[in-house]
Amino acid sequence: MATQRIRDFLATRRPEGPCMILDLDVVRENYEGFVKALPQSRIFYAVKANPAPEILRLLVSLGSSFDTATVAEIEMVLDAGATPDRISFGNTIKKERDIARAYELGVSLYAVDCVEEVEKVARAAPGARVFCRVLTDGEGAEWPLSRKFGCVPEMAVSVLRRAHELGLQAYGVSFHVGSQQTNLKAWDRALSDASKVFRTLAKEGIVLKLVNMGGGFPTRYLKDVPSAQAYGLAIFDSLSKHFGNRIPETIIEPGRGMVGNAGVIRSEVVLVSKKSENDKLRWVYLDVGKFNGLAETMDEAIRYPIETAKDSDEKVPCVLAGPTCDSADVMYEKTPYPLPISLTVGDEILIEGTGAYTTTYASVAFNGFEPIRSYVI
Amino acid sequence: MATQRIRDFLATRRPEGPCMILDLDVVRENYEGFVKALPQSRIFYAVKANPAPEILRLLVSLGSSFDTATVAEIEMVLDAGATPDRISFGNTIKKERDIARAYELGVSLYAVDCVEEVEKVARAAPGARVFCRVLTDGEGAEWPLSRKFGCVPEMAVSVLRRAHELGLQAYGVSFHVGSQQTNLKAWDRALSDASKVFRTLAKEGIVLKLVNMGGGFPTRYLKDVPSAQAYGLAIFDSLSKHFGNRIPETIIEPGRGMVGNAGVIRSEVVLVSKKSENDKLRWVYLDVGKFNGLAETMDEAIRYPIETAKDSDEKVPCVLAGPTCDSADVMYEKTPYPLPISLTVGDEILIEGTGAYTTTYASVAFNGFEPIRSYVI
Repeated sequence: MATQRIRDFLATRRPEGPCMILDLDVVRENYEGFVKALPQSRIFYAVKANPAPEILRLLVSLGSSFDTATVAEIEMVLDAGATPDRISFGNTIKKERDIARAYELGVSLYAVDCVEEVEKVARAAPGARVFCRVLTDGEGAEWPLSRKFGCVPEMAVSVLRRAHELGLQAYGVSFHVGSQQTNLKAWDRALSDASKVFRTLAKEGIVLKLVNMGGGFPTRYLKDVPSAQAYGLAIFDSLSKHFGNRIPETIIEPGRGMVGNAGVIRSEVVLVSKKSENDKLRWVYLDVGKFNGLAETMDEAIRYPIETAKDSDEKVPCVLAGPTCDSADVMYEKTPYPLPISLTVGDEILIEGTGAYTTTYASVAFNGFEPIRSYVI
Repeated sequence: MATQRIRDFLATRRPEGPCMILDLDVVRENYEGFVKALPQSRIFYAVKANPAPEILRLLVSLGSSFDTATVAEIEMVLDAGATPDRISFGNTIKKERDIARAYELGVSLYAVDCVEEVEKVARAAPGARVFCRVLTDGEGAEWPLSRKFGCVPEMAVSVLRRAHELGLQAYGVSFHVGSQQTNLKAWDRALSDASKVFRTLAKEGIVLKLVNMGGGFPTRYLKDVPSAQAYGLAIFDSLSKHFGNRIPETIIEPGRGMVGNAGVIRSEVVLVSKKSENDKLRWVYLDVGKFNGLAETMDEAIRYPIETAKDSDEKVPCVLAGPTCDSADVMYEKTPYPLPISLTVGDEILIEGTGAYTTTYASVAFNGFEPIRSYVI
């Protein structure tokens, strides 16, 4: 996944220190892949995955819309040239003054998952469109979503009814099947739940229009994942099954699936050591770790592909750790990572699939290490 | 732990948004407590816990020395007015060019835990003093240290011997019993291991001088912890037991114990909701979370005391979550937190014991949320 453009950049520019290089051509291909796979859906890029202005400007030019978490992200998207009708304020947890600010900026689509949030939107953004997030079980996702967002489908009915009563436009339902979701059928159950909310409210004369199918589209790390086309077909089948010939407007919100495989982290081996003379396990310490780019190795959830110049040599199991004085700054220990036995201090390594959830996830300056630098090419 | 000075600051200044306020008077008391408890030990403040310049300047004026993780931290300490003889480069994972830079800046005390690191120090900081970190089992610590740092005691002998051969000053041994260590006997076993390294090398004519006893001194969260005095007595007993009348120079490196209880995070309730009508569990969402200040709630390791203006009301179990669109941004879910049933949107809460490992642990701008602001008073 280190493209030739990324390799050329590293070879000619030789940036100092650890960095993430992201190839916009890959983002463009990913966008076009989603359009082709789901031609009926609007694409709302999940800005939190990587808010680099170059990415936002490219996606604006390609016609993308944007899923945002905060007023700061809304402003970044507007700065990149998008009109506010292309923005969703997709966070279900918003201060009322932030809703008011988004409304002033022209944003008219808001996520909710409880009556209290509906009441805030009704006061701060009168007449806006709201969609209610429904809980899914997240089975099959490598990064399951817990129960933080959403409510059960029965409660979504009351939430949207309340929105209607308060003069908002009860616009639809959203769900999220869990990040890096590789089970193609995960969308089916959620779409079934969504269709029930549609039917219940239709009987009361409240006609929903939108299903926001969220993200969860995986990027390729070590295992092969189904292609965007395979996702598209499975989702279209489920939509037909549950909505018949009244298929609603649909939205998808890819984040990792849009930028994950476009980025590569270039790191340096700082130390290779053992804990005792007879230890079979080697410890490899890098200049990036959990606090300056690789936060998603938390609980060893995401296993990134790693490339070195010595990959044809014999490989031995290694614990992979970051450079801070924090004992939690270890990426792979429970399942050691096979790396060349010849790997040594000063060697460069490439950590692939790191275009999403790396740069802004980095800590401000923990231990004095600066956040990872990013080059978008 | 919200001191009157912190309460007055909040009442008069009314800062906007979530913030951490730290009372320097408490830091001063903590420093004096350590001096009193361990009058024979030099105190090296672990800068990573909180590198705010006001804290560093206060500790410089009180006579403290400093444990640093990077050249950036070394420069901060020098900027605060410390001379380089008061600085230890305590990270066992260092780039050779960073060792050279520290040496240029006058730093002459370095941590190592393997022969490879000794060789770097010998090349980049000729003649410097090195201490070798020894592995401990971390039993009894709330934040155990895994095996990331240190080597077994037998290997420490070879590491220090190699340092001696390369013209470095084989200066001592360090260990760390694990952060927030509440077992007073944890130091005893480590001191026993350290004394064996001293005796083995003494037979070869290599006379070590220093035992760096690291940190691990707890701050008071919800449970009462032993006082600094109790730690001091237990440690002095172990030193006498293992070193007899040849007690070495000792260093301690408190971080959390120096600043943890000096800080309070002021946060706002953004949303209170349930996932279904019959749900017994309430979800309370704050404007701070794992990515902008409360990273140490990872795995619910640290349970901070929380104060609200409604604490005399009935309390019910709540899941406590942060404001981002990240499902991992949940502080307490496995063990819900009892909070007033009357708690509602817009209420202020104080999260106590948050002076350490909060401000610099925060992410750069994940989801567009800025890092938590800090006021040192």
